[in-house]
Amino acid sequence: MKLKVKAVDLSTGGPIVAVLDDEDAKKLDLHTLDRIRVKRLISNKEVIANVDISTKGVKPGEIGLFSEPLQRLGIEEGTHVEIEAASKPESTEIIRKKLDGHPLSREELLTLVKDITYDHLSEVEITYFVAGAYTKGFSLEESAMLTEITVEMGYKLKLDKKIVCDKHCVGGVPGNRTSMIVIPIIAAAGFTIPKTSSRSITSPAGTADVMEVFAPVMLSHEKVEEVVKKTNACIVWLSSLNPHGADEKLIKVRHPLSLDPEGLLLASIMAKKKAVGATHVLIDIPCGDGAKFTHEEGNNLKKKFVKIGERLGIKVKAIITDGSQPIGCGIGPALEARDVLSVLEGAGPADLQAKSVFMATELLKMAGVKNAREKVIGLINSGAAYRKFLEIIKAQGGRKTLTIPSAKYFCCCEAPSRGVVKSINNKLLAKIARIAGSPEDKTAGIYLNVRRNNHVHHGDVLFIVYSNNPKRLQFAKDLIHKNANKVVVVE
Amino acid sequence: MKLKVKAVDLSTGGPIVAVLDDEDAKKLDLHTLDRIRVKRLISNKEVIANVDISTKGVKPGEIGLFSEPLQRLGIEEGTHVEIEAASKPESTEIIRKKLDGHPLSREELLTLVKDITYDHLSEVEITYFVAGAYTKGFSLEESAMLTEITVEMGYKLKLDKKIVCDKHCVGGVPGNRTSMIVIPIIAAAGFTIPKTSSRSITSPAGTADVMEVFAPVMLSHEKVEEVVKKTNACIVWLSSLNPHGADEKLIKVRHPLSLDPEGLLLASIMAKKKAVGATHVLIDIPCGDGAKFTHEEGNNLKKKFVKIGERLGIKVKAIITDGSQPIGCGIGPALEARDVLSVLEGAGPADLQAKSVFMATELLKMAGVKNAREKVIGLINSGAAYRKFLEIIKAQGGRKTLTIPSAKYFCCCEAPSRGVVKSINNKLLAKIARIAGSPEDKTAGIYLNVRRNNHVHHGDVLFIVYSNNPKRLQFAKDLIHKNANKVVVVE
Repeated sequence: MKLKVKAVDLSTGGPIVAVLDDEDAKKLDLHTLDRIRVKRLISNKEVIANVDISTKGVKPGEIGLFSEPLQRLGIEEGTHVEIEAASKPESTEIIRKKLDGHPLSREELLTLVKDITYDHLSEVEITYFVAGAYTKGFSLEESAMLTEITVEMGYKLKLDKKIVCDKHCVGGVPGNRTSMIVIPIIAAAGFTIPKTSSRSITSPAGTADVMEVFAPVMLSHEKVEEVVKKTNACIVWLSSLNPHGADEKLIKVRHPLSLDPEGLLLASIMAKKKAVGATHVLIDIPCGDGAKFTHEEGNNLKKKFVKIGERLGIKVKAIITDGSQPIGCGIGPALEARDVLSVLEGAGPADLQAKSVFMATELLKMAGVKNAREKVIGLINSGAAYRKFLEIIKAQGGRKTLTIPSAKYFCCCEAPSRGVVKSINNKLLAKIARIAGSPEDKTAGIYLNVRRNNHVHHGDVLFIVYSNNPKRLQFAKDLIHKNANKVVVVE
Repeated sequence: MKLKVKAVDLSTGGPIVAVLDDEDAKKLDLHTLDRIRVKRLISNKEVIANVDISTKGVKPGEIGLFSEPLQRLGIEEGTHVEIEAASKPESTEIIRKKLDGHPLSREELLTLVKDITYDHLSEVEITYFVAGAYTKGFSLEESAMLTEITVEMGYKLKLDKKIVCDKHCVGGVPGNRTSMIVIPIIAAAGFTIPKTSSRSITSPAGTADVMEVFAPVMLSHEKVEEVVKKTNACIVWLSSLNPHGADEKLIKVRHPLSLDPEGLLLASIMAKKKAVGATHVLIDIPCGDGAKFTHEEGNNLKKKFVKIGERLGIKVKAIITDGSQPIGCGIGPALEARDVLSVLEGAGPADLQAKSVFMATELLKMAGVKNAREKVIGLINSGAAYRKFLEIIKAQGGRKTLTIPSAKYFCCCEAPSRGVVKSINNKLLAKIARIAGSPEDKTAGIYLNVRRNNHVHHGDVLFIVYSNNPKRLQFAKDLIHKNANKVVVVE
C-alpha cells in the first residue's frame, strides 16, 4: 500500500511509531501495535514501525510518522512510502513465555535485550516484560545470563589488574554519599576502583549528580580509561558509557507503578560491575522504615547478590545498613558534596564518617588487607584520601579550587515543641528537596540538623531548605506545611 | 507554569496526553506518565493529562496537546494554559496491589473500572492491569464483583419476564454461527432471548458482522427494547449499547501479546448477559487442537462459569464442544449468512445443523421445556424458526428479500494428492479469510468443502477463497502457497 507521509513533529523517545487511518488499517488487517515495514520508494531504506490507528488527524492514504522514523528514513512531509504488514518481533512470544512463568534461555534473553535496545518493542510490550519480571521473577541463572548479555552488548573497561574493587548502594536513603568517600580511600590504599554512578531518577541526587559539583562526569570511553590508569579510580556517570542500553528504556515504563523487579535490579547492578571488570564488590543495602527494603527483603537480596556474584566470578559482600533515616546532613548535590569534603578532611557528619570508614574497611578486608580499619583511618587522617580525591577531580577535568556553590534562598523548619525526634521521613525529604530544585539546581536541597532520638527545644531548627528559585522554595514550603510534623516527627 | 499550546493533530484513541519539553518537565519534577492538571486561563475548564516528554517538536514554554485534550478544553494552537502537577489516580496503587497478588475489594474494582472507562489511565498502566489479571488472576468473588460493576456502569435492558434466555460462545472456531440459528428457534418457542453480539476482532467474522448482512446491528437502546418486545429477540452489536466501556480500552493492550486473562473474560461475558437481564445462559466452549482452549482448560472454565452464574443469580450451563475444525462451510459474513439461512430452511451443513439443534435443545431444557429436541426440530421443519428470523430482521430495520451478495473473484485450493483429511488449521483459515477482506468485505471469506477424515481425490476442491479485491485475493493465495498443505492437511 502506497501512502503519503504526514510528518508528526514529535519524538516518542524510543519506539518507531507510524499512525494509520482507521480504514487503511482495516485493508491490511492491521491492529494497534501490529508491525509494518515502511519503505522509501526510491532508495532501499526501510524501518519496522509500531502501528497506531487514529480516527483523526491522519486521512485515508496518509501515514503519520513521528521524528524517529522520519529521521531513519531521511524523508519529509509529502513523500510517498510503501507499507506492508511485518511480523511481530520474536520477543513478544518470549515476553508471553515469561508471563506464563517459564524460565528464559540465554538465546531468548539476548533476543529480548536486543529488541529493547534497538527500539523494536512498543511501550506496551516492554511493560508486559517488566510485569512478567515482577510477577514471575528471574532465577539466579536467568539474572546471571541477563547480566552477561548486558555486559556483552555494552562498553567494557579493560584493566590489566588482578584486583578491581567496586561498591554499590541500592539507594532509597537521602544523603548517604559514601561512594565519594570510599573511592578515594580505596584508591589511596593502592587498589583500583573505577566507579560508574547513576544520576538521580526520583531521588534528590545520585552520586553522578554530586560528583558533577566538582568535575565533569560525562566522559568518553578513552577519557575514563586514562583517568583510571592515572589515578586508580574514577567517579563517572554510567550512562555516558552506555547511553542506549536496555536499562534506560525500562526505566520509563517502570516509573508509573514504581516497579523494581528484583531480577532486573540484580542484573542491572551486576552488569555495571562486570562491565568495569570488578573482582571485589561491596553492596550496601539500606533497610528499614522508609527505605526501599524491609530487613527481611534485604536479607534475601543479600544472599542473591552473593550467589549471582559466584556465578559471574565476582567476590561479592552485601551488607544490610540502617536505611530508616538520612545519612549525612546534606540532601542535594552541593550540600552532599560539602559533607563529602568535610569527611575527607577528617570532620563532617559523624554518621556519614562512620559508615564510610566501615564500608572502606570492609572493602579493603575483602581485598585481603590486614588491619584494614587502622589503614582507612590513617588514610583519612594523613590527608592521603583527600589528596586522592583532588587527583581524581583533576584527572576528570574538574575545578582546581573546591569552593562549593550555595543557594540564594532558604527557609528553616523549626521544632513545633520541645521533645524527641521520633522519626524522619525519607520520602518526604526527597520530595521537598526535588521540588526545591534538586538535582538540576545543584545548590538546592535540604540541610538536616537532627537525627532520630535527638532532644530538641521549641524553635530549634530541624532542617533548612535551599533553592535558587523563590517560587520553587515556596512550593517546597507548601509541601512542608501540608505535611506539618510528618517530615521530622517530634513528640 | 504557563505554557503555549501546540496542537498535535492526532487522536490517541483514549488517554489524555500532554507533551512537555524536557527542561520544563524537570522544573516541575515531572516524569513520563506523571499526571498534570491542564487549565484554561479564562474559563474553569481543565483536564488531567498523562505527561509525555519530548526532546523534539515541543519547545520550552510549549505544551503539545493531542486531539482529546484540545477538544475537552475547547482550545486551539497558540492559546495559553496553566499546568500544575497532579497526583496519580488511585488506580495505579490498586493495579500494583493486583500485581503483588492481593485480592481487590469491590470499591477498588469500581475505582479501577471508572478510571479505565473515563480515560484516566495511560496505556502502560492499563497494560500492568492486564498483566496483573493474567499472572495473578481473579477469584470468582472478584470476577463476580467486576461483572456487577460493569453492569452498573453501562446500559441495562429492562424486560418484565420471568425467563430471559441467552447464549454465548467463547470463540476461536471459524464458521460456528449457531447463535443466529438458536435465537430464532428459542424466540419461536415463545421465550425471550435478547442477544448482544460482538464484531470480529481477530476472527473472520463475529455474529454482529454476519447479522449485518441482513439488517442493521447498531441500534439505539430504545430501538433494541422495541425489537425485543415485538419479536422476543434481537441480534445486535453489543458495543452499540455500551460504546465506551472499559472492555473496549482493554482490547487494545491485550492484542499485542494476545492475552485473554480468564478473570476478565468471565466478567466481560457475564456482564453482557447480566446487562440484558438473562436468567438462563448456555455457554459454548469449543476445545481441542487449534481452538482457544485445551479440554482441561475448557473444563476448568466451565466450572467457573457455572459458579459465577450462581453468585450472580443466573442459571448457567456451559458445554464443551469440538473446536478442532470449523463448523459449517462458510467463513466470512456473507458465506456464514448463507449457511445460517440454509439451516433455518431445513438444509445446510450437517455439522452446523446438528450443533444448532443441540444447543437450542439444551437451552429449552434449561428453561424447563419437555421433549425439547422434538420441539426444536419441529420449529425448524415447520418453518416457524425461519419466519421468526425474518421477523427479527424486519424489526431491526433489515432487508425484506434475503439475497446474499457474492464476491467478484475467487480461487480454489485443491487436494495435492489422494488421501484423507488429517487436520484443518483454524488459525490459518481465519488469517486467509481476513486477508481476503473479511469481515469488512462482507462477501470475502472461505467456503470449506471438506471435514476431518473425509476421503479426497487428487484435484478435489478443498476450499474456495472469495474476495471483491483481486489484490487481496492474491495476498491470500500467497499465504496459502507459503503454507502449502498446512491449511487442510491431506495424507
